[in-house]
Amino acid sequence: MNIVEIIEKKRDKKELSDDEIRFFINSVTDGSIPDYQISALLMAVFINGMSDGEISVLTDAMANSGDKIDLSYIDGIKVDKHSSGGVGDKTTLVVAPMAAACGLPVAKMSGRGLGFSGGTIDKLESIPGFRTSLTEDEFVTFIKRDGIAIMGQTKNVAPADKKLYALRDVTGTVESIPLIAASIMSKKLACGSNSIVLDVKCGSGAFMKTFESAVLLADKMERIGRANGRNVYALITDMDQPLGYAVGNGLEVREAIETLKGRGTEDFTELCFIAASFMLVAGERARDLTEARRMLEKSITDGSALEKFRRLTENQGGNPEIIENYSLLPQAHTVIDATSPVKAVVSAVNGEMIGSAALTVKAGRLTKEDKIDYSTGFELFAKTGDSVEEGQVIARICAPDEKTAETAREQVISAYSFDDTAKKKKILLGYIDKEGLHID
Amino acid sequence: MNIVEIIEKKRDKKELSDDEIRFFINSVTDGSIPDYQISALLMAVFINGMSDGEISVLTDAMANSGDKIDLSYIDGIKVDKHSSGGVGDKTTLVVAPMAAACGLPVAKMSGRGLGFSGGTIDKLESIPGFRTSLTEDEFVTFIKRDGIAIMGQTKNVAPADKKLYALRDVTGTVESIPLIAASIMSKKLACGSNSIVLDVKCGSGAFMKTFESAVLLADKMERIGRANGRNVYALITDMDQPLGYAVGNGLEVREAIETLKGRGTEDFTELCFIAASFMLVAGERARDLTEARRMLEKSITDGSALEKFRRLTENQGGNPEIIENYSLLPQAHTVIDATSPVKAVVSAVNGEMIGSAALTVKAGRLTKEDKIDYSTGFELFAKTGDSVEEGQVIARICAPDEKTAETAREQVISAYSFDDTAKKKKILLGYIDKEGLHID
Repeated sequence: MNIVEIIEKKRDKKELSDDEIRFFINSVTDGSIPDYQISALLMAVFINGMSDGEISVLTDAMANSGDKIDLSYIDGIKVDKHSSGGVGDKTTLVVAPMAAACGLPVAKMSGRGLGFSGGTIDKLESIPGFRTSLTEDEFVTFIKRDGIAIMGQTKNVAPADKKLYALRDVTGTVESIPLIAASIMSKKLACGSNSIVLDVKCGSGAFMKTFESAVLLADKMERIGRANGRNVYALITDMDQPLGYAVGNGLEVREAIETLKGRGTEDFTELCFIAASFMLVAGERARDLTEARRMLEKSITDGSALEKFRRLTENQGGNPEIIENYSLLPQAHTVIDATSPVKAVVSAVNGEMIGSAALTVKAGRLTKEDKIDYSTGFELFAKTGDSVEEGQVIARICAPDEKTAETAREQVISAYSFDDTAKKKKILLGYIDKEGLHID
Repeated sequence: MNIVEIIEKKRDKKELSDDEIRFFINSVTDGSIPDYQISALLMAVFINGMSDGEISVLTDAMANSGDKIDLSYIDGIKVDKHSSGGVGDKTTLVVAPMAAACGLPVAKMSGRGLGFSGGTIDKLESIPGFRTSLTEDEFVTFIKRDGIAIMGQTKNVAPADKKLYALRDVTGTVESIPLIAASIMSKKLACGSNSIVLDVKCGSGAFMKTFESAVLLADKMERIGRANGRNVYALITDMDQPLGYAVGNGLEVREAIETLKGRGTEDFTELCFIAASFMLVAGERARDLTEARRMLEKSITDGSALEKFRRLTENQGGNPEIIENYSLLPQAHTVIDATSPVKAVVSAVNGEMIGSAALTVKAGRLTKEDKIDYSTGFELFAKTGDSVEEGQVIARICAPDEKTAETAREQVISAYSFDDTAKKKKILLGYIDKEGLHID
């Protein structure tokens, strides 16, 4: 098979055969075709698209390009949860213990974050002592005994996706729905679960800026999952502003614990209930979303979800006293307030700008080599729809030193827009399952 | 400036600014952007196209990416001639002495051929003793004294084009009219002439398979030239079969000499008269094409064109006795005949297949390192429109050994198509100058 002919076919808007797609992915994986040919084909795919059939084969080929994870030691339906990510997204820290408390085992392998803020693994490592490098034996033991464990990715999962993603990032071919869908789903297919709850973020702080594009991506991913025998719920949720009030690793752990104690912000708590409800339904631990919601609410009020978080922390070597004493979490060197320049209503908090500010205070990383500061970040006291007085404290800046604190304060304030009036938005904008699109 | 943003802009079908195009070409030239980004942009250009303004700036930037040739030592208008190339194209060997005999100095720098058959430089080197490596002093002396010199490219002309062409060749981005036009014209602009006669080949043996695509390419090149202050005549000529009767370096030199003696084939002689007529008009040595034609016909009948060829050969160390004694040219080891399998009319001679056969007998090179055999090639005695008897010799095969001779004979015979009847085609299908398209 000849890679130039494959490139020319997609360039001319023709459909690639299964064999051609598998040849391409095998050649990417074994390094036998050079980057300049890969990027030419990626650009042709970006512009000319792919059919559902092509996307499904591409995803399967990428899923099979490396190791596959075996979850057969867990009885019943295995449910995975994935978020397309965003500033302040600490959802896993809350929904994993909630779902576990309701009888759904959570065996989560997570990656590290690249970009605005840390990933789940980074956030957990801000808990003193917490180990995310577990042996497979430890991982299985914790799940069997307590129904919850979270570890860093050790296996070589979907290496073709890693290679393609790195190239897409530097060749203007990231925002392609077929390529995004195949990238996310290849990793999910390789990870051994039967059901997948996807949280597709939509809005200024997310990859997908419009509802339409988010629906399109959600739809593609549900189809890929279905074509590969998986049960997929693809939620489309609002991400016009950072999630919850905390941005930054240690600060987000604190917010997650507050949420498990029933004291979370309205938007973030609601998102956690929604995502976890779908997980319980997908895992057949609840008959429907209403029953799931009742079970999850009980897990908060009776403290069982928080108890699961404590077990998770203890099992993996973390200091459980942080749950009662937040001062045991990393504390930033410099903490300053940001105040509102006007009396008005907050009309928007730009997620991308808050994300850039998070990089300023080293709460995220731009390259794999960057070291994250677990103590830094922001608490956003005013969100979209809130009325503020002139001079009112709208955010707190936690930074490694005074200079970066000042810079970040400017960035955070400029991320706010003000107006006379603004409406709060719904969290769940709709979802797609095997029966199609549902909009409340 | 950021290359990823430039890629994204073209990907989204937007027009690139002058600065963006120049930044891209400068970065290609100095090697500061990696091949995978270049090929992503080339694919975006291939699919989404370029405006005339973008193409003109691209060409100028490539022309300025390396050395420029100074022809100011020649008085008056300097005319360059370029053919988009094809099997059996030995036009330069004839039109250069013809034009020189009519008072138009020809200072030609040529490249070596890659592909089906050798380039002008390879063909000349099949003359025993002929040197194509001249010092600049020699080159200027010959032109001032005799009005003719042909040497190999020594300067670093349009290095950005070399880099881009090599990448296009392996990423399915060759057949893009903006990229082909910019590639050809960048080299012409760097070569210091005021007027350019382009011969755009059209048909099965050429890049441009249809008249429409050839017109489009000719039009783009004329516009680029005009935007850069050059007077361009872009001829569109038929290339459905090999030009003339000889294919292969030494054999083509012999055909060129025969043509200068007034004994050339009808199709090739006609093409030479047409191309040289446009050169004389472009160089203001003739008032119009009719006068130019009369002057050129005289240069053949009075022997002055052949005399210029003799001077060229003598000046550059070649043995002029080859002009009277063809046996002094390289002689092939094995010479066999190919006969017609039927009594019929030749309806087509496939140029691409004859070209492949030329590679079989080593008359061309596939990689820069391949060594050409100057003695090999074919004489095609029957061309499109000729009636042939069964068993009539239609071609002669000159090969390095019997085995390749047999293989090439099969290839040559299979390149022929036969029918009951067939029409000879016109050579000049039309031309484009500053006033637009002219069709006879």
